[in-house]
Amino acid sequence: MTEGVDPAFLHRLDEVADRVTVALDQLIPPAAGPEARLMRAMRHGALGRGKRLRPFLAIETGRMFGAQEKSLLRAACAIECVHAYSLIHDDLPCMDDDDLRRGQPTVHKAFDDATALLAGDALLTLAFEIMASPETHRDAMMRCRLIERMASAAGARGMVGGQMIDMHPDFEGEEPLALLTRMQRMKTGALISFSGEVGALLGGALESERHAILGYTNDLGLAFQIVDDLLDLRGDPAELGKATGKDRSKGKTNFVTLLGEEGAEARVRFLAAQAKQHLASFGARAASLLHTVDFVLHRGH
Amino acid sequence: MTEGVDPAFLHRLDEVADRVTVALDQLIPPAAGPEARLMRAMRHGALGRGKRLRPFLAIETGRMFGAQEKSLLRAACAIECVHAYSLIHDDLPCMDDDDLRRGQPTVHKAFDDATALLAGDALLTLAFEIMASPETHRDAMMRCRLIERMASAAGARGMVGGQMIDMHPDFEGEEPLALLTRMQRMKTGALISFSGEVGALLGGALESERHAILGYTNDLGLAFQIVDDLLDLRGDPAELGKATGKDRSKGKTNFVTLLGEEGAEARVRFLAAQAKQHLASFGARAASLLHTVDFVLHRGH
Repeated sequence: MTEGVDPAFLHRLDEVADRVTVALDQLIPPAAGPEARLMRAMRHGALGRGKRLRPFLAIETGRMFGAQEKSLLRAACAIECVHAYSLIHDDLPCMDDDDLRRGQPTVHKAFDDATALLAGDALLTLAFEIMASPETHRDAMMRCRLIERMASAAGARGMVGGQMIDMHPDFEGEEPLALLTRMQRMKTGALISFSGEVGALLGGALESERHAILGYTNDLGLAFQIVDDLLDLRGDPAELGKATGKDRSKGKTNFVTLLGEEGAEARVRFLAAQAKQHLASFGARAASLLHTVDFVLHRGH
Repeated sequence: MTEGVDPAFLHRLDEVADRVTVALDQLIPPAAGPEARLMRAMRHGALGRGKRLRPFLAIETGRMFGAQEKSLLRAACAIECVHAYSLIHDDLPCMDDDDLRRGQPTVHKAFDDATALLAGDALLTLAFEIMASPETHRDAMMRCRLIERMASAAGARGMVGGQMIDMHPDFEGEEPLALLTRMQRMKTGALISFSGEVGALLGGALESERHAILGYTNDLGLAFQIVDDLLDLRGDPAELGKATGKDRSKGKTNFVTLLGEEGAEARVRFLAAQAKQHLASFGARAASLLHTVDFVLHRGH
């Protein structure tokens, strides 16, 4: 399901995913003491096989700007902790009530609801602990800036706010496609955009370069979500590692129900072209980020 | 229920609680946009009438060491956001399943489980955003240090780990009183200790002074928990603003079931005396922290 994507890129993606998983294994406390169950649940939620798309974006953007590898890896792990926590909480019965994630039982299925709740809380807390450590960057001003931006992307005006809209939108007469786009930009877009921004900040990118990266991640994030909605319609649950047809069975609005299948595909192609356009000024240095667009377009999961 | 406590102290406690509530009202985003429900739930959980004991400890300790008022107030608000989030998640049906808190319906009762989950997540995230802001302290190294310490106190080896032990302890043959003490030190003690530490750090306290404060908050936190267990046994639900007899009805171990009522009272008196002893070297400057011990001993809620 990744035809049309450069094999060397796929190898690089796997390599980064492995490095992130190894680093996360070091950063999440070992399962010891009477609270060991918590660490086992954190590990179940964070160390499973994932694409690690957000860490990849952070690391590849940072490499383009010449950032330190160690800083990038630690910041990427903090982002992945935030992502893993959001999935754990999102899968809970009071939220999306999902039993399967990345082909494995979700944390509340493998453990129980309380343990999943706490494991998510602990991963979110760990994300900030990782980011604040002098090991992430020598300059405390940089660390504080990353923390402020991460909190903003993950919080009430970002990811969590998007989840709230997804569950119980206060409509205020907003047009459905505008509301859905806003919800997506907050729920998944904000953390994807922050991932690119981390690389730009750690690499000391110019203001204009940072804006180009932001434009790129905005389009990429939206394309990613529309592809997700297309996969929910026609993806293979075995390959996806999670249930499909969820939105349809719940009568939920998504980009495919609003734009139609062909309209959604056309929107994805448009966003992909626009995302690549934002990278034009970087030339060959942006090869990996360009391939990421193709990967998001052609992914089967 | 606060006989034996200095009236001037009670006035000061109220004053600080009011200042913290006003500041929190400014720091929590207003309820606007399609995600407005989230902010309403955050406000319900954080702005209710509370003792604000942790902010008070941070502010009074900081004042003793001459810290800046603005820094203290913002850091105190960050701590209260962490405390409020922990109560919201702790009250959820999959955790303690409580309907009443501070005399009001709990967040999941006033809204629903998903909204309460997200409101807790957003408050935890906001706590770190507040702490990382240059408005909290001019020196980014100080902000990072506070963030690292807060994450450590709130995370898997602190508060959340304590909640895990409370729900599903991995016993490892530990003696019941030792396990209970460890659980309490993590679940409630860590954040109480961090509150005092914030004041010491922001006030530039000496290493020896910081250790004295740590000894004080350790004893105070444990005394606070044992009083809580005594109140659970014999407190007035109307005055407490929450249900009582919960531990007994659930057959749960607490300090009163392990030590007996008289044993628990004796332990509280011992801890109170020891807490005050830690403050001896500060002389009259520590008056407010000394009164806090009496307040914790005599509180009816």
